[in-house]
Amino acid sequence: MTKQFHDTVLGAEALDQLFRKARSYNGWLPKDVSDDQIRSIYELLKMAPTSANMQPGRFVWVKSDEAKQKLAACVSEGNEAKVLAAPVTVIIGYDIDFHEELPWLFPHTDAKSWFEGDEKGREQGAFRNSSLQGAYLMLAARAVGLDCGPMSGFDNAAVDKAFFGDNPRHKSNFICSIGYGDRTTIFDRSPRPDFGKFNTIA
Amino acid sequence: MTKQFHDTVLGAEALDQLFRKARSYNGWLPKDVSDDQIRSIYELLKMAPTSANMQPGRFVWVKSDEAKQKLAACVSEGNEAKVLAAPVTVIIGYDIDFHEELPWLFPHTDAKSWFEGDEKGREQGAFRNSSLQGAYLMLAARAVGLDCGPMSGFDNAAVDKAFFGDNPRHKSNFICSIGYGDRTTIFDRSPRPDFGKFNTIA
Repeated sequence: MTKQFHDTVLGAEALDQLFRKARSYNGWLPKDVSDDQIRSIYELLKMAPTSANMQPGRFVWVKSDEAKQKLAACVSEGNEAKVLAAPVTVIIGYDIDFHEELPWLFPHTDAKSWFEGDEKGREQGAFRNSSLQGAYLMLAARAVGLDCGPMSGFDNAAVDKAFFGDNPRHKSNFICSIGYGDRTTIFDRSPRPDFGKFNTIA
Repeated sequence: MTKQFHDTVLGAEALDQLFRKARSYNGWLPKDVSDDQIRSIYELLKMAPTSANMQPGRFVWVKSDEAKQKLAACVSEGNEAKVLAAPVTVIIGYDIDFHEELPWLFPHTDAKSWFEGDEKGREQGAFRNSSLQGAYLMLAARAVGLDCGPMSGFDNAAVDKAFFGDNPRHKSNFICSIGYGDRTTIFDRSPRPDFGKFNTIA
């Protein structure tokens, strides 16, 4: 199950697909994303690291017309049409009570006890680690040949009520459309910083 | 600069290297990570998406013996030896005042004004998006043939004072050792959830 790839640099095409030539899309070609593709994204993202394997992410893949309408009613004006047009938009949420799952997710030790009674710490850990999982999700989607359009412009409380109403301990973090990006809907790439701007080697 | 890879699934070896067979390491082979390797990680991670291209991540790559000692003094007991032994440990921080950089990072519109006067919103955005960048960093390190060992067990205030003392608007998020993982330092992989456990298709 473990394999090492020391000094193996992925090929230029793979780095382009994951990082360098991929873009965030605002519009989508009329082509569906299958449930199998959705599952293949999760099968990759779940392997990437979270603190104490907490896996706090809770994912709702909004695919039906009815669910899209429900989600579109919760997003900012500029994001409404995007959600309705995308083949699927995933709500990346998190469970504040993720620690209840740690006995089976992290069987090496009693990690559940680290988080009991510390709701503020759990909220921070769940927010940080579900954000990591959202990033893994985007790179996993790109790795299987799909494009992403992440968004944070929406009413979190409304989304929580509409999609996590059954479990008030689940909260939304951000949302991300996934599909086949329409190149006509994007502009030039925004500038990126030189290494020295935001990095220090100490 | 834009290229599409629709339905191109990365090869099995690349998916193993990024997600499936990569592991988080607790110990390191005695082999250095060069400044060029550090730069190559940043050159990849900076291309991945952040909200309004805010790029809130501020990275301190702790590589000298002196800096390692300084960082080791701020981490939990179990992480001290890891920080001292790792070729490099990066502090993934964020700038609460990232919006000051938006006029050049997001030239399409006046995004700076969206964040002015909303420190709580900025803090949340910076925390979420620097977490995304931390995830990109880990997958970028793996993509260039290195291993990661992320940690959140440290005293954030102490790290902020020791490494961001010159700029009190910069805060630490998490830290991550990078190098050539020593396979003898890891145990069996923790279980991963089946799709149905934490996912819904709506």
